[in-house]
Amino acid sequence: MSAKTPVGVLGATGAVGQKFIKLLENHPWFEVTEVAASERSAGRRYEDAVAWKQVTPIPDAVRSLEIRPCTPDLKCRVVFSGLDASVAGQIEEDLARAGYIVLSNSKNHRLDADVPLVIPELNSDHLGLIPIQRRNRASNGYIVTNSNCSTMFLAMALGPLHKEFIVEKVLVTTMQAVSGAGYPGVPSLDILGNVIPYIGGEEEKMEIETRKILGRFNGHSIDLADFAVSAQCNRVAVEDGHTESVSIKLGRKTTAQEIAELLAVFSGPPQQLQLPSAPGRPLLVMTAQDRPQPRFDVNLQHGMAALVGRIRSCPVLDFKFTVLGHNTIRGAAGASILNAELLKAQGFLD
Amino acid sequence: MSAKTPVGVLGATGAVGQKFIKLLENHPWFEVTEVAASERSAGRRYEDAVAWKQVTPIPDAVRSLEIRPCTPDLKCRVVFSGLDASVAGQIEEDLARAGYIVLSNSKNHRLDADVPLVIPELNSDHLGLIPIQRRNRASNGYIVTNSNCSTMFLAMALGPLHKEFIVEKVLVTTMQAVSGAGYPGVPSLDILGNVIPYIGGEEEKMEIETRKILGRFNGHSIDLADFAVSAQCNRVAVEDGHTESVSIKLGRKTTAQEIAELLAVFSGPPQQLQLPSAPGRPLLVMTAQDRPQPRFDVNLQHGMAALVGRIRSCPVLDFKFTVLGHNTIRGAAGASILNAELLKAQGFLD
Amino acid sequence: MSAKTPVGVLGATGAVGQKFIKLLENHPWFEVTEVAASERSAGRRYEDAVAWKQVTPIPDAVRSLEIRPCTPDLKCRVVFSGLDASVAGQIEEDLARAGYIVLSNSKNHRLDADVPLVIPELNSDHLGLIPIQRRNRASNGYIVTNSNCSTMFLAMALGPLHKEFIVEKVLVTTMQAVSGAGYPGVPSLDILGNVIPYIGGEEEKMEIETRKILGRFNGHSIDLADFAVSAQCNRVAVEDGHTESVSIKLGRKTTAQEIAELLAVFSGPPQQLQLPSAPGRPLLVMTAQDRPQPRFDVNLQHGMAALVGRIRSCPVLDFKFTVLGHNTIRGAAGASILNAELLKAQGFLD
Amino acid sequence: MSAKTPVGVLGATGAVGQKFIKLLENHPWFEVTEVAASERSAGRRYEDAVAWKQVTPIPDAVRSLEIRPCTPDLKCRVVFSGLDASVAGQIEEDLARAGYIVLSNSKNHRLDADVPLVIPELNSDHLGLIPIQRRNRASNGYIVTNSNCSTMFLAMALGPLHKEFIVEKVLVTTMQAVSGAGYPGVPSLDILGNVIPYIGGEEEKMEIETRKILGRFNGHSIDLADFAVSAQCNRVAVEDGHTESVSIKLGRKTTAQEIAELLAVFSGPPQQLQLPSAPGRPLLVMTAQDRPQPRFDVNLQHGMAALVGRIRSCPVLDFKFTVLGHNTIRGAAGASILNAELLKAQGFLD
Repeated sequence: MSAKTPVGVLGATGAVGQKFIKLLENHPWFEVTEVAASERSAGRRYEDAVAWKQVTPIPDAVRSLEIRPCTPDLKCRVVFSGLDASVAGQIEEDLARAGYIVLSNSKNHRLDADVPLVIPELNSDHLGLIPIQRRNRASNGYIVTNSNCSTMFLAMALGPLHKEFIVEKVLVTTMQAVSGAGYPGVPSLDILGNVIPYIGGEEEKMEIETRKILGRFNGHSIDLADFAVSAQCNRVAVEDGHTESVSIKLGRKTTAQEIAELLAVFSGPPQQLQLPSAPGRPLLVMTAQDRPQPRFDVNLQHGMAALVGRIRSCPVLDFKFTVLGHNTIRGAAGASILNAELLKAQGFLD
Repeated sequence: MSAKTPVGVLGATGAVGQKFIKLLENHPWFEVTEVAASERSAGRRYEDAVAWKQVTPIPDAVRSLEIRPCTPDLKCRVVFSGLDASVAGQIEEDLARAGYIVLSNSKNHRLDADVPLVIPELNSDHLGLIPIQRRNRASNGYIVTNSNCSTMFLAMALGPLHKEFIVEKVLVTTMQAVSGAGYPGVPSLDILGNVIPYIGGEEEKMEIETRKILGRFNGHSIDLADFAVSAQCNRVAVEDGHTESVSIKLGRKTTAQEIAELLAVFSGPPQQLQLPSAPGRPLLVMTAQDRPQPRFDVNLQHGMAALVGRIRSCPVLDFKFTVLGHNTIRGAAGASILNAELLKAQGFLD
Repeated sequence: MSAKTPVGVLGATGAVGQKFIKLLENHPWFEVTEVAASERSAGRRYEDAVAWKQVTPIPDAVRSLEIRPCTPDLKCRVVFSGLDASVAGQIEEDLARAGYIVLSNSKNHRLDADVPLVIPELNSDHLGLIPIQRRNRASNGYIVTNSNCSTMFLAMALGPLHKEFIVEKVLVTTMQAVSGAGYPGVPSLDILGNVIPYIGGEEEKMEIETRKILGRFNGHSIDLADFAVSAQCNRVAVEDGHTESVSIKLGRKTTAQEIAELLAVFSGPPQQLQLPSAPGRPLLVMTAQDRPQPRFDVNLQHGMAALVGRIRSCPVLDFKFTVLGHNTIRGAAGASILNAELLKAQGFLD
Repeated sequence: MSAKTPVGVLGATGAVGQKFIKLLENHPWFEVTEVAASERSAGRRYEDAVAWKQVTPIPDAVRSLEIRPCTPDLKCRVVFSGLDASVAGQIEEDLARAGYIVLSNSKNHRLDADVPLVIPELNSDHLGLIPIQRRNRASNGYIVTNSNCSTMFLAMALGPLHKEFIVEKVLVTTMQAVSGAGYPGVPSLDILGNVIPYIGGEEEKMEIETRKILGRFNGHSIDLADFAVSAQCNRVAVEDGHTESVSIKLGRKTTAQEIAELLAVFSGPPQQLQLPSAPGRPLLVMTAQDRPQPRFDVNLQHGMAALVGRIRSCPVLDFKFTVLGHNTIRGAAGASILNAELLKAQGFLD
C-alpha cells in the first residue's frame, strides 16, 4: 500500500466527529483530508470552529483544514459520518447516491433492509447487502452502519453465545456514560449525584438492532434473530463507558465456565485479518468478582473490546453477566473505522 | 398516651445508628434515652465519640448521653439495632433473651424461621411469629427485622401486584447509593466516575428476602412466596437513593395502566393506623417518562415511600418499571421505626 | 396587613425564576400572581412550559398560571427578575419606568450610580438612592439589585470586619457550584471529575460589587469602599453552594478569636425587623476545623446565612478563612426576596 | 549501560507504591526487583497482597515477587519509598544508615537540615547536601526527598519567577484530587457533591517546603527563600490532578506576557540531561482562558509537567495564575523517579 486512502469526516466538530479525527490520527490506512459540518461552520478553519473536547490536542494535519459543507464536493471517496440524526438521513443518502462510501454512526439507516449493520467479528457476511443496496438505489456509493453504542457491547457478548447455544431471551439494564449523549449533552445539574432512568429511543434501538446484527443474511436480506430483547436504559455520572447487566436464556444447556471459555477465546475476521483497529481479543473475560468497571477497564484493548465479567447462573433465566465497553470508541467512532478497515481488507473500497 | 416510650439505639455511632437518632428526634411516641456502641466508644459522651454525618445537628437530647456497651443493662425495653452484621447476631439474640424488644436492621436474623421480616404495609400478619419466637427461645423479648435496603423497594412495589396478579418471575438490576455501604464505606477513588458491578451478599439477600416478605404465614412459619428472583446489584456515584430496573412476569393478564392504578391507590395498616412515620402513599407512581430520579425524588414523602415510574410492557417477561427509594430512611432506620410503631399500635410493646 | 402583596416573577421558567417561585410559596407577605417569560413561552400554562428542576413540586397556585410576556401589563406592582443578562437590562428599565418596583438578580443595573446594590444586614441605607433614581429617571417605579452569588458571601463576611477594623486588601478564590450557571448550564462532560478555573465575568463582578456594597452612601451616590479585591473563580462538581477561600489585610490589629466573636454575634436590620426570610444569624461561625462544607452545611438557616470557618492567621496578609453560602438561595432569589421584605418593612412598597 | 539498576519499592502495596511500580515498568535504567511492605503483607506474592488500583495491569515482572519486610536485607541499593508517614521516618533512616540510597516521597525527612528536597529542574545543586548528610550520619547511604504533591506545582511555577524577578509574597488556594489521600483515603460520602476545606498538615507543608526548595545551598545547608507563603487547601471530587489558584508579589516589575514567555521556555537539568522521565517542557503554558483543567490536561507530558494558565495581573499583589499537575505522578512517584534519574546521571548512584 503506497499511499493512504483519503477520508472525510461528516459532523466533524461534534462529539463523534472529534473522536473520528482523534482515532484516525496516524492511522496506517486512512488519512483525514476533508472535514465537513453544518453550513454554520463551513468555511472556517477546523481549530477555530471546534470546541475540542479530547484529552489529546487536535491533530496537526486537521487543525487548519477548512470546514466544508456536507455536499458531494468532498475530495475523498470514503466518509465517516458522525452527523446528528436530525440531518444524517438525507445527507448520507445523497452522498451514497453521489458515489461516496459512507460509514455511518447514525441511527437513520441502520434498519434499512439493504443497509448492513455490521460488527466485523460477528456478521461480516452482511456486507453481502452492499451490491443489493447499490442496485436498489442505482448508486455507486453505499452506506454501511454500526450499531448504537449500548447495543454494541450486548451484541458482541451475545454473538458467540448465539452461534453456539442459540440465544432465546435477553434482558438488559444499562448504566450509560454521559459522553454517549454528545456535547453539551447531559446538563451537570441533571446527573451529579443522580441516575436518569430514561434515554430517549435507546431501548427500542437495543431491542431491534441486536436482532438485526445477530440475524442471518439469506442472500437477499437479513432475517432478524429469533429472540426477544428487553432493555432498560439508565444514565449515570460516568464520563466514558457503558455498563450493562444482562440476563439470558439459551437454547441448550451449558455452564458459566463454558461460557467464559467460549467468550475468552472468541475472535473473528478483524483478528484474522489483523485489521489496524482490531482488539487482540474482542471479548475480554475478567475474573475478579467486581469487574469490569468503567473507570478502570474502559480503555483496555484501546477501548475496542467488550469486557465481560460476573458470568454466573440466573435464578430466573439461565445466565447473567456484566458487560462494559467504551461507548465513544468501540461504541461509535472506533466501530465505524473498524468497519472501514474490513471493507478495505475485503476489497469493498476499490 | 401520657409519656413517650424510652428507646435505645445499638450501634449508635454508625451510619444507621445516626439515622435512627436523627429520625427519632421529636418522635411523638419514642424518645432516645440510651445510646449503645462497641466497648471502644462506651463511656464517652455521644458527641465526642461520633463522627456525625447528618445534615442536621445532633439532637440536644442525645448530644451528651454517655455511650453504653450493648449489654442487658440498658434502661429501656425497646432497642433499635444498627449494629454491624459482624456483631449483631449474638448481641441481638442476647438482648431479646434478656427481655428486650429488638427492632433490627441487620441481616443476621432476617431469615430465622421464627423471626418476622416485616414491611407493615405488606405483611403485618407475620408478627404472628412473635409468640412462637418467644416460646422457641424461652425469652420475654423478641426480634423483629426489616429487609435489606434494596429489597425494601422491590418488595414494596411487588406486594400489591403479587396479591392481585400473582408474581411469577422477577429480574431486577439495582443502581445503589454509596450511603448504603455505611461510613467510611465506599472509597471515593472507587466510585468517582465509576460503576461497581458487585455488592457482596446483596443479590442473595434480594433473592430470598423478597420471597419471605411476600410469603404466607401459615400459623407456624412463613411459606416463601413461590417465585424466583434474580438480582444484579451495582454501586453508583449517588449519595442517597437506590434505583432499580425491574422486569416481572405475572400469573394473570393485566395492563400497565391497571398496574399504575393499583399501585397508586395502595395503602396498608400504617396508613390506616396513621402511624407517625407512615408515608401518605407508600407507592408514589410518577408519570413523567424520566422519573423517578434519586437526586430529585428521594425525599418525597419524607423518604418513606417507594417511587415507581416507567411502568410499561416488557418484550420478554410481562412488564417492566423503575422503582426508587431512600436507602437509609425507608430502606433502613425508617423501616425499623415504622415496624416499632406498628408493634406499639398493635399492643406488642405492652 | 390584611392581604398579601401580589408579585410577579420575570424569567419565571429559568433556574432563578423557579427558585423565586419555590421560595415565595407560602410567603407571609407576598403572593405570586404573575409569571412572565420570553415571547416563546408566553401564553402557555406555567407547568407546561417549565422544565421544573426543584426538589419540591410546582406550587399549586402557580401551576396553572398563564405565562405573560415581560411587558408593563403585569397586574402587580412588585416584580422579581430572574431574567438572563442578555435581556434584563432593557426590560427592567422599561418596567421601572412604567411604575414597577423591580427586585433584580441580574447584573445589568448593579453598578448604575443610582441603583442600590443591597445586602440588608450591611447597607440598608443605600436605599437612599431610590428617590434619586426615581428623580433621575423620571419614573415612579425603581430597581433594587442584589449582588452576584459569589460576591454575596464574601461581602457578608467582610461587612462587620470592615466596620470594625477597616478592610484593606482581599484575596478570594472561589469553588462554585454548577447551579450557579443556570440550566442547562454546565455540561456534565465539562465538570465530572474536573475543575474549571474560569467563570466568565465573575471575577470582575466580585472585585467591584464588593466595594459598592461596603461603600458609603454620601447622600447622592455611593463612594466605593477603599480596598482592592482580587478574585479567582473556579467551577467544581458541587450541586449547590459556593465555597470561598479568603485572605484579608485589616487596618487595625485583632485576633482570629475576636473576629470569630464579632461575626458570630453580628446581626442587622433583617434580624431586628424580623423579616420573614431573615436568617436568625446571618453569619454562622463553625468551629470544626473541616467546616463549612457545601454538602452538609449549605442548607443551614434555610440557605440564608453565610457560613464561616477556619478563621486563622495568614502568613502573608493578616487573616484567612473559608466562607460558604447557598448560591441560589442567599446568593440569588432569596437575596431579592429579603430585599423586598426590607423595602416593605421600610415603607418603600407603599 | 549494560544492565538496569535493580531497585526496591517500600510500601509497595499502597497507593504511591503502586504508582512507583507502574511508572517503573519498562524503565530504561531501573528495574523493580524488590517489593517491601509491612510485616502483615511480607511473605505473600505481590499480586495476592495488593488491591491494585491502576488502570493498567500489574507488570508481569512484579506480579509474582514475594513481598519483603522493610529491613536492610533488600537486594538492591536504591529504594523508592512510598511508606506512610507513620512509619517512614525510622525505616528510611535505618535503610540509609545501612547503605541504601532512599528516594523518599514521605514528609518525614524533607525538612531535615542535611536532606535534599529536590526538584531537578530547580535546585539540583541541593544534592550538595548528600556528602554532608553521609558525614553527619556516618552512613554510606543517604536520603533524597521530593516535595509534597501540592507544593510541587507551586514550586515549579515559582522557580523561574524567583530566579528572574524575586518572589516576595505568595498566596495559594488548592483544589486537590482525592488520589492525593491514598487508598482507601477519602470516603465517597465525604466528597460526592462536596468541597472539604481542610487537609491535615497540607498548608504547613506548602508554606515551608516551597521556601526550602527555592532556598539557596550555602555550601553547608539551605537558606530558606526569603518570602512568605500562605496556603489554603481544599479537597474536591476530582480523581487526579491538583489545581491551584496562585497570587504573587514580585521584587521587580514585569508583565503577564513576560512571565508567560519565561515559563514557556523554561527548562533545567532533566531536559538538558535528557533524563528518561523528564517532561519535554516542565512548564506548559496554556493560552485558552479556561485551562488548565484536571480532567483534560493532567496527563499532558505524561503527567510530569506543571500546567500554567490564566496568567494575569492581580489587583492586590502583582500577578495571579492557575497551576495544575498530576499529584500522583509529578507530585509523588514520578518526582522520586526523576530524582533518582538525576542522581544516576550525576554519578550519585555509583
